[in-house]
Amino acid sequence: MNAADEEGRGLLDRVFLTRVVEPGDEAAGRWVRELGAEAVARRLRAGGPPLPGVSGKRWAGLLGRAGQAEPGRDLAVAREAGVRFVAPGDAEWPGQLDDLGDARPLGLWVRGRASLRMWALRSVAVVGARACTEYGAHMAATLAAGLAERGWVVVSGGAYGVDGAAHRGALGAGGATVAVLACGVDRPYPRGHAQLISRIAEQGLVLGELPPGDHPTPSRFVLRNRVIAALTRGTVIVEAAYRSGSLVTARAARRLGRHTMGVPGPATSGLSAGVHELLRQDAVLVTDAAEVVELVGDMGELAPDRRGPVLPRDLLDAAARRVLAALPGRGTAPPEEIARGAQTTPDDAVARLYELRSLGYVERHGDGWKLTRQSMTAVRGGRRGC
Amino acid sequence: MNAADEEGRGLLDRVFLTRVVEPGDEAAGRWVRELGAEAVARRLRAGGPPLPGVSGKRWAGLLGRAGQAEPGRDLAVAREAGVRFVAPGDAEWPGQLDDLGDARPLGLWVRGRASLRMWALRSVAVVGARACTEYGAHMAATLAAGLAERGWVVVSGGAYGVDGAAHRGALGAGGATVAVLACGVDRPYPRGHAQLISRIAEQGLVLGELPPGDHPTPSRFVLRNRVIAALTRGTVIVEAAYRSGSLVTARAARRLGRHTMGVPGPATSGLSAGVHELLRQDAVLVTDAAEVVELVGDMGELAPDRRGPVLPRDLLDAAARRVLAALPGRGTAPPEEIARGAQTTPDDAVARLYELRSLGYVERHGDGWKLTRQSMTAVRGGRRGC
Repeated sequence: MNAADEEGRGLLDRVFLTRVVEPGDEAAGRWVRELGAEAVARRLRAGGPPLPGVSGKRWAGLLGRAGQAEPGRDLAVAREAGVRFVAPGDAEWPGQLDDLGDARPLGLWVRGRASLRMWALRSVAVVGARACTEYGAHMAATLAAGLAERGWVVVSGGAYGVDGAAHRGALGAGGATVAVLACGVDRPYPRGHAQLISRIAEQGLVLGELPPGDHPTPSRFVLRNRVIAALTRGTVIVEAAYRSGSLVTARAARRLGRHTMGVPGPATSGLSAGVHELLRQDAVLVTDAAEVVELVGDMGELAPDRRGPVLPRDLLDAAARRVLAALPGRGTAPPEEIARGAQTTPDDAVARLYELRSLGYVERHGDGWKLTRQSMTAVRGGRRGC
Repeated sequence: MNAADEEGRGLLDRVFLTRVVEPGDEAAGRWVRELGAEAVARRLRAGGPPLPGVSGKRWAGLLGRAGQAEPGRDLAVAREAGVRFVAPGDAEWPGQLDDLGDARPLGLWVRGRASLRMWALRSVAVVGARACTEYGAHMAATLAAGLAERGWVVVSGGAYGVDGAAHRGALGAGGATVAVLACGVDRPYPRGHAQLISRIAEQGLVLGELPPGDHPTPSRFVLRNRVIAALTRGTVIVEAAYRSGSLVTARAARRLGRHTMGVPGPATSGLSAGVHELLRQDAVLVTDAAEVVELVGDMGELAPDRRGPVLPRDLLDAAARRVLAALPGRGTAPPEEIARGAQTTPDDAVARLYELRSLGYVERHGDGWKLTRQSMTAVRGGRRGC
């Protein structure tokens, strides 16, 4: 077996495992960590005795699913739907998911042009109640638009209410947004958001742990929230009743050492009660995007205003290098012009521009984009050398 | 001069000083601390050279006011209006005002039956914007009613908006409330609250640093706030715009080590912006009276549920002893019945009952009052011995 075959094999094993193992299964995560994905997949295919940490009944369930898994077909269906599979170790894998330990996703199914790894570096989750009030929808959309305008990627769960308002707010500001689903990414849920999720896949990213065609369940919604929390630098809760699912995301974010924030509302609103409870614990009260950025931006390592790009230019991929080369030496250019210069579509150019933004190469000013001072002076190689 | 004359003289000196010196004048506070009220009053009456810490111009202003002061007349006018003068060292003086250091009031003019000292022990300030929203007025009234129902005294500034709603909420719950004015207490301000302030004087207490007839000024409003902050165990801000006067009270409370609390509101409301700013600093978010009591009650020293009365029964004044003796040995009685037993008016009985509540002797249950377990077992002397 040559190296490419081995890599393909490892990929198929993980694709197989996402079909067999439920998201967040820590016993399975431990097996993969200790034995490797290939050995675990082999054991499940062979129907051997249970691995440690699961009951016989649960093992039998896993074997049942293993018998029906067709990873090659899953990959083909995904590819057909424009969906790629990203696994730990891949260049696009967002390293912060490793903070989940054995609950780390076995892999992610991803739709959209941008690099998940790059976008996640500069992302904030905005989540909240499905049955939100007009105030909640307004705050979610305003916050998300403000975050997008400041070059932050808005991550949410694609649900009705606060999630949808957040995605729309980011899209409406011409910004970057990521929907993390609790089902196969080729099977948008809720159905009423099919169009919104398509738009997110075109302008942003849609991703999830579940293989093509898989459906959401209550526990999958809950476990999806840990991915949102881990992927981002902080989570903002906009309206949540007591015991709401959004509070799961907030608690997960806190456990992972991410910033937890809440938008206040009237003390008389049951839909703010859960947020107020968080704010009485250790979440930070935020009322606008500037306050969010003040908090999540203070980690500093990647704040592009303060230091040079985090990757040397010659390590960028070819598409990003073409977009970077299409930026004017002085002043700003609109995405359409940059797209023409880079010989790509405006959507693709915008996705690349946000990646370059995460890396500190470019800045957004209103509708235009320009090179940062650092990218002109502090990087290896001249601009024309791209 | 006998002791009574000396005491009367000391009282007149302080009454004189409240007419001459502005509230919160720390230079004058230092003179009184170092030289005594009598010596300072004598120096001002005699027109001697300036005391340390004031300009010649300010000293001349003080001398001008000293020349017009008539403390005997002030006391007589006050007495006529049912107003008493309470000075540091008096039995009714609330010791927590001493935390103000040299900015401690030289004395307080007080209307109402209850003991200021006793009421202040178990009091919370509820203050906020004059031009509040309906939401703010609702929250102030609800919080104040809830605090009153839990036996807490609601302190506020008698102003329009949040203050008025807080006073009314406490009164409406048959509870105890204190208005701290920035003018003579015989001269209710604002005029539109004349009736409310009269009701507060009948059922609660109205007090201030300024002598009869004196009028409010912007700086007097600001300095009044330090008295509200110092008198109470904590301050709740209900609606305040950026740079609002209520924030002065909150900052004073924080400096004095009191609890600072804020009621959240919509992030879109300018009248909640000041509160949210506080909550982003170190104030605690509260949404109901239970949360306020959870915080201010945790100082514990006087929490009557946990320990016996703080004063032995034979140190109570005669009126309080009569009310205590009128409570039934078992079960609750309404205030009217207790008033009949104590041969006093229902208003007076309620005032005494709240004093006794502060001291841990009695509890309120709905509209009735009963002896606490501690007052029946853990105090010196039998109940019939009162």
